[in-house]
Amino acid sequence: MIIIGELINGMYKALAKAIMDREIDVIQHLAVEQAQAGAKALDVNVGPYSKDPKEDMKWLVESIQSVTDVSLCLDSTKADVIEEGLKIAKSRAIINSTDADEEKMNTIFRLAKKYKTQVIALTMDKSGVPNTKEKRLELAATIVAKAMDMGVNTEDIYLDPIVLPVNVAQAQGLEVLEAIREFRLLSDPPPNMVVGLSNVSQGTKARSLINRTFLTMAVANGLNAAIIDPLDKDLMDALIAAELIMNKQIYCDSFLDAYRKK
Amino acid sequence: MIIIGELINGMYKALAKAIMDREIDVIQHLAVEQAQAGAKALDVNVGPYSKDPKEDMKWLVESIQSVTDVSLCLDSTKADVIEEGLKIAKSRAIINSTDADEEKMNTIFRLAKKYKTQVIALTMDKSGVPNTKEKRLELAATIVAKAMDMGVNTEDIYLDPIVLPVNVAQAQGLEVLEAIREFRLLSDPPPNMVVGLSNVSQGTKARSLINRTFLTMAVANGLNAAIIDPLDKDLMDALIAAELIMNKQIYCDSFLDAYRKK
Repeated sequence: MIIIGELINGMYKALAKAIMDREIDVIQHLAVEQAQAGAKALDVNVGPYSKDPKEDMKWLVESIQSVTDVSLCLDSTKADVIEEGLKIAKSRAIINSTDADEEKMNTIFRLAKKYKTQVIALTMDKSGVPNTKEKRLELAATIVAKAMDMGVNTEDIYLDPIVLPVNVAQAQGLEVLEAIREFRLLSDPPPNMVVGLSNVSQGTKARSLINRTFLTMAVANGLNAAIIDPLDKDLMDALIAAELIMNKQIYCDSFLDAYRKK
Repeated sequence: MIIIGELINGMYKALAKAIMDREIDVIQHLAVEQAQAGAKALDVNVGPYSKDPKEDMKWLVESIQSVTDVSLCLDSTKADVIEEGLKIAKSRAIINSTDADEEKMNTIFRLAKKYKTQVIALTMDKSGVPNTKEKRLELAATIVAKAMDMGVNTEDIYLDPIVLPVNVAQAQGLEVLEAIREFRLLSDPPPNMVVGLSNVSQGTKARSLINRTFLTMAVANGLNAAIIDPLDKDLMDALIAAELIMNKQIYCDSFLDAYRKK
């Protein structure tokens, strides 16, 4: 499982403040903690309150890279903000994200080739988030075909079926789970499948329970990457146990510790 | 989800003693507690230490039925022990179990017809527990065909792919999960799918975590019945959340309480 830590995101008020006031300790502490908890990449998003997104992205990437060498998942709707991070990224980065829109894919896949990155691709387009598995698959196929056309390897694509909050779009959970199961059949080698997990529990009570339950079910359907809070111990325990059952980690009595020490 | 409470089983030493000494309070307390926690049926097994299995089965069924009217899941390898319970069962019972052996199916399905019960059918035969999804499916198809032949409705069959301990048969977890997904395609109306859950964590550390993780993954694959400990609160929370995500229960902020009050 490729764990992408979600916590460095300016949509959280405390983070927005830390970015604005250049509180480097706050950022670096979160980076180190997430990496130690098992994150193989860290999402980096300046957030909606940023006055100078390019400059903030640059500062975040520099601040994080001076304390950890895990990959960065550069997260913005603006390609020029992402590129600001790509220019100085030391490890191979992940672009978060493109969608299935032709023009957007042209821009993002060009960046991906230029900087040799991986790409998260959302199965949505200008008409919005699909409400069926079939439409998600159709958009995923469009993305995979376009990536191939442009010379981006399918194993460098992370297809994201877009998880919606269970309290407002309850029927979508099963559509997303079934989409994940079928995405892997789209190419050989298969693309990666990723979810932005915490969206599933947005606005609900019992957020951690809903998050870890959905993640466990997604792992059963073949999910191999997730943007999550790796500091949520119960979530990580569930993930490790799910990987154990999927036979991705060998059982030993201390399998929880063994996974964390890897 | 059809929850079958597992706790009245003489393989547990304390229960074996309660049965032998006719400690009716112990049995009745467990029956009521499991029913209140959501069990729709109670497994009843006199266990391996019983000196008079038929008499013990009769006493257990009478003791339980005087405090609750949930269904009983009469659990024995011996047909005559099961029949002792069937003779006095007030609600529609479940027989636990037959396997795919021709002679065994003849005996058990005849009992099922005579007493109008449902039947748990293990996908194993005289050569033992299969180690692939395909062999489980083959045996499941044999069972479903035999049930149809003998006039037992497929919706009264609970196919059990036989969960093995993850610490000794780790690769089997995925085979079982995938088997569950395909069992439901065997007939229309589909058979039920059940697991004896706690076997998955037999001999491991972190039993409750492994149990609830496996159950969550099985629900994602279509499992609709399980023999479990309904008094394990974390397990029940996971199950309720999994049902929520599968859109089997409508979301409300108090969905955990709402499920329990049903």
